Amino acid sequence: MTDTTPTATARHWLARFEQALATRDIDGAVALFADTCFWRDLVSFTWNICTQESPAQIRAMLQARLDDVAPSNWQLEGEATAADGVTEAWFTFETRLSRGRGLLRLQDVGGQPRAWTLLTTMVELKGFEEKTGTRRVAGAEHGVHKGRKSWAEQRAEEQAALGTTTQPDVVVIGGGQGGIALGARLRRLGVPTIIVEKNARAGDSWRRRYKSLCLHDPVWYDHLPYLNFPDDWPVFAPKDKIGDWLEAYTKIMELNYWSATTAQHCRWDEAAGRWEVQVLREGRPVTLRPKELVIALGVSGYANVPKIPGAESFLGEQHHSSQHPGPDACKGKRVVVLGSNNSAHDICAALWENDVDVTMVQRSSTHIAPSAALMELALGGLYSEQALKNGIDHHKGDLIFASVPYKIMHTFHIPVYEEMQRREADLYGRLAKAGFMLDFGADGSGLFMKYLRRGSGYYIDVGASELVANGSIKLKSGVNIERIHPRSVTLTDGTELPCDVLVYATGYGSMNRWLADLISPEVADRLGKVWGLGSDTPKDPGPWEGELRNMWKPTQVPHLWVHGGNLHQSRHYSQFLSLQLKARVEGLPTPVYGQAAVHHTA
Amino acid sequence: MTDTTPTATARHWLARFEQALATRDIDGAVALFADTCFWRDLVSFTWNICTQESPAQIRAMLQARLDDVAPSNWQLEGEATAADGVTEAWFTFETRLSRGRGLLRLQDVGGQPRAWTLLTTMVELKGFEEKTGTRRVAGAEHGVHKGRKSWAEQRAEEQAALGTTTQPDVVVIGGGQGGIALGARLRRLGVPTIIVEKNARAGDSWRRRYKSLCLHDPVWYDHLPYLNFPDDWPVFAPKDKIGDWLEAYTKIMELNYWSATTAQHCRWDEAAGRWEVQVLREGRPVTLRPKELVIALGVSGYANVPKIPGAESFLGEQHHSSQHPGPDACKGKRVVVLGSNNSAHDICAALWENDVDVTMVQRSSTHIAPSAALMELALGGLYSEQALKNGIDHHKGDLIFASVPYKIMHTFHIPVYEEMQRREADLYGRLAKAGFMLDFGADGSGLFMKYLRRGSGYYIDVGASELVANGSIKLKSGVNIERIHPRSVTLTDGTELPCDVLVYATGYGSMNRWLADLISPEVADRLGKVWGLGSDTPKDPGPWEGELRNMWKPTQVPHLWVHGGNLHQSRHYSQFLSLQLKARVEGLPTPVYGQAAVHHTA
Repeated sequence: MTDTTPTATARHWLARFEQALATRDIDGAVALFADTCFWRDLVSFTWNICTQESPAQIRAMLQARLDDVAPSNWQLEGEATAADGVTEAWFTFETRLSRGRGLLRLQDVGGQPRAWTLLTTMVELKGFEEKTGTRRVAGAEHGVHKGRKSWAEQRAEEQAALGTTTQPDVVVIGGGQGGIALGARLRRLGVPTIIVEKNARAGDSWRRRYKSLCLHDPVWYDHLPYLNFPDDWPVFAPKDKIGDWLEAYTKIMELNYWSATTAQHCRWDEAAGRWEVQVLREGRPVTLRPKELVIALGVSGYANVPKIPGAESFLGEQHHSSQHPGPDACKGKRVVVLGSNNSAHDICAALWENDVDVTMVQRSSTHIAPSAALMELALGGLYSEQALKNGIDHHKGDLIFASVPYKIMHTFHIPVYEEMQRREADLYGRLAKAGFMLDFGADGSGLFMKYLRRGSGYYIDVGASELVANGSIKLKSGVNIERIHPRSVTLTDGTELPCDVLVYATGYGSMNRWLADLISPEVADRLGKVWGLGSDTPKDPGPWEGELRNMWKPTQVPHLWVHGGNLHQSRHYSQFLSLQLKARVEGLPTPVYGQAAVHHTA
Repeated sequence: MTDTTPTATARHWLARFEQALATRDIDGAVALFADTCFWRDLVSFTWNICTQESPAQIRAMLQARLDDVAPSNWQLEGEATAADGVTEAWFTFETRLSRGRGLLRLQDVGGQPRAWTLLTTMVELKGFEEKTGTRRVAGAEHGVHKGRKSWAEQRAEEQAALGTTTQPDVVVIGGGQGGIALGARLRRLGVPTIIVEKNARAGDSWRRRYKSLCLHDPVWYDHLPYLNFPDDWPVFAPKDKIGDWLEAYTKIMELNYWSATTAQHCRWDEAAGRWEVQVLREGRPVTLRPKELVIALGVSGYANVPKIPGAESFLGEQHHSSQHPGPDACKGKRVVVLGSNNSAHDICAALWENDVDVTMVQRSSTHIAPSAALMELALGGLYSEQALKNGIDHHKGDLIFASVPYKIMHTFHIPVYEEMQRREADLYGRLAKAGFMLDFGADGSGLFMKYLRRGSGYYIDVGASELVANGSIKLKSGVNIERIHPRSVTLTDGTELPCDVLVYATGYGSMNRWLADLISPEVADRLGKVWGLGSDTPKDPGPWEGELRNMWKPTQVPHLWVHGGNLHQSRHYSQFLSLQLKARVEGLPTPVYGQAAVHHTA
């Protein structure tokens, strides 16, 4: 009797794959893949974040890397599963330098299992494991030692010395969720790091946003590394609660977090082989000299404020959404909000809740994704109470999420949004009737692909769309503001709107502007555009990149890194960025395979 | 074929038990117990923490409580196991008012399974469940509402109002681990609570102790409710790290934590049916009027400082261990430490580490439990990485721990300490040779029983015993200090020791002294002695109580409760105290069965 369980199928494939790799039989290894195949590697084979998208690319990567990586000890983890002709299996493996974990999807090709997608990820560097679980330090169990210092004394000494008498290996500029998550991982890896944050307290980047803001992603998707939110947290956490959590987290994780500190200028000091980072710490100039510099300022840059004729004549209050104080200051006033994405909707809804007269000006079409449908259809399988019940916590969810190659990701999403259109037909119909211009992305692939490609163009509906549909939030669509007058604005269709407060919910510019100011325009251009996949859709020009540009991986500027994204990405990708930084700091060989070329400055 | 798996045996017993209880067949229910049997109930049947220690006691309890409790829906949880003739099974059940969880141990009696130990615990009150997991509040998903307030606004309003325009239902005096753990549970249950703490910051009660202090219990045993320590925490956490954790925890859990606040006087206001609690909050008098008052000041009271002739003539520095600043202030001085328990050993070791000349004066015998052996032999099965690997997290560990009746607990411990004596024979031999007076408790049951019976008399050895054995810490044993001179002390054997610093590591008095001062001597006496089991061993006079006196359960003083213990107890028993308080605040009927009489004032 042939043993044809999914587990047996996967074990058999994995054994053949291991054998081919061990004997450096690259033809044999490549032959185990289907014609349409993808191997996504997070740092373990390539010291890069990159996806090989064909047998030929896989062959080239193995030819370049196999001898050096020397993979071994491939082991199935748990039982494989099969559905819709695809066998899915978790596994662990080792390389010369690291231990890893992966996810494999097999298809039947002419009676033989062949790999369709393969994900390999680095979990830890051998000899540099985190001191967790059975590796915990004992603390008091060490016995007695002459001259021993207490934890508090050691910590105080470290804080006094780092950045003055000793230098950090890594400086992270930006102390939001990205910098904090990365800092926590580097701390566990024993990499001396300083996080530079301009605000007075960790979490202020959330606290300072508009009053009504809650996360648009659900709680299961948003955990930071190492410490989950308590299980009574609301599904969508309020901004101040997140701010307080981030602040507590920096303390619990013992981060060297320099708040009230602004980065002034950074320069690579070729002679010293280190960066020179000039900061103002609580007004006092300090020069830091790290080996590696991470920019974690968010993937967007300066606030975009369009130049509109007459703006200087306006007698009311005008500000970018990032400066919007919330509805209290707008009582009794007429507010115009320019823009129709997340912030515009949230701000309009909060104004309506406080009986403020508000008009939204929609310039171009927007993707609306009702939160409940989004949670159920798009995220629920990986991030929800139900997922937890099914044994998928966010660690597992992150890897499943990461295992879908960007090249075909839209094909996974299009059916989700087709279903969303069916399910939410009533709301979409009424929005259209109210004049709201809807889209579902260039190819109908919806929210997450828009996020990856351009980082804009959508609203996760937590209530405001109903207000737009029923006219509670007034809408002017397909227009822009042509001119601003002292107490009104004129739209491009000639309408004049009375206006006491004008809110520019017009997004953010490219992060490269910050890089240009902080380092130099030349370095910003050498690094090139950040974010986007090269999908050749609006705001994401080709050629195809295969991965997000410049995020969490080596850039064309040595020792300069970009970290960020939403809470999920900050958590998940900080793992791979921290391992890349640790390897460099420890002087391990880190030859980068498939370094992306720069096709666009920003 | 007879189905004789442990699970089938347990299921069969549970079904018969359920049937007997459902039909109010008390004879039938009692017949399901062995002659030697124990039913420990944590609040679910008795609104008390009490153990029935015989079939007759079980019968009496059921006669009094069965109709009212109306238990139902007894369900095995997972598979039962069998070892050494005992079948062990987890189960869930309901009462009229609550849902519960329990642990059952069956013995074979003449071919029939009979209950040897039964633990029933309350998990939640029906209709008052914590909003966790699938019960989370949605946050932003609620949609839009006129006049909605943000989380930060609501929280600020609550903090401004509570204790001024609104009154808390519960006031907890003492904001150490006990008050904080209870506060977190009450918060989740929606019971308005203020925690009063004299120190400036949460965690200061740990921070202010001697510099070298680390927890003597391992990390797995010490978690607070709802939020585990991160998995890289040292096995024995340093005091300042615990202090910082407690401070972060109070913020994360959104406790109404009044630091820098001292309780001045408490009085039950019969007319109002509330307490009147006078506090000084940052120097400003405030009167709080809670329904229930919890004393969480630690189970010990004022520092014990023996009156020794000549103390007033001493020209050096003398202080109680609770005031000991650590070794830095003692450099170059000759230190005498009076006492030989945990604090004495820790202080002596830290002094030796800093090259300070130190002598320990041991008045009576001490139980020494080497930490590694203690962890492995006594705690490892329930609280360790190995336990986690075996599927026993601290939630499960706490219930297994709680399921062993106090009456027979020493019989579980005696073999552990016999093994410890074998394993550590070398250390014990050398300690004895150095003159150190050893004991293993009145009946050889060791550390934990000493802790429960008298709360003193031991050192968990994390290194100092070696220093005593090898003479690095000088030892004078079987003596006391007879007289203090300006620069020396004379011992009862006539020896004179030069002395610049005298540390009284002489423990603490009864908590009732605090109650007497805070409320009145009459109320302190009415409540009676706190802690201890009535084991009729030194410092724990009989009669037998069956449970710790006055801890976490109704006392003879209505609306007055005592909470505390180590981190494990603060975590575990805060669950049952919080449910008792919640039930009373909600006006549920809470008839107490088996209310303990007071046999001793303190």
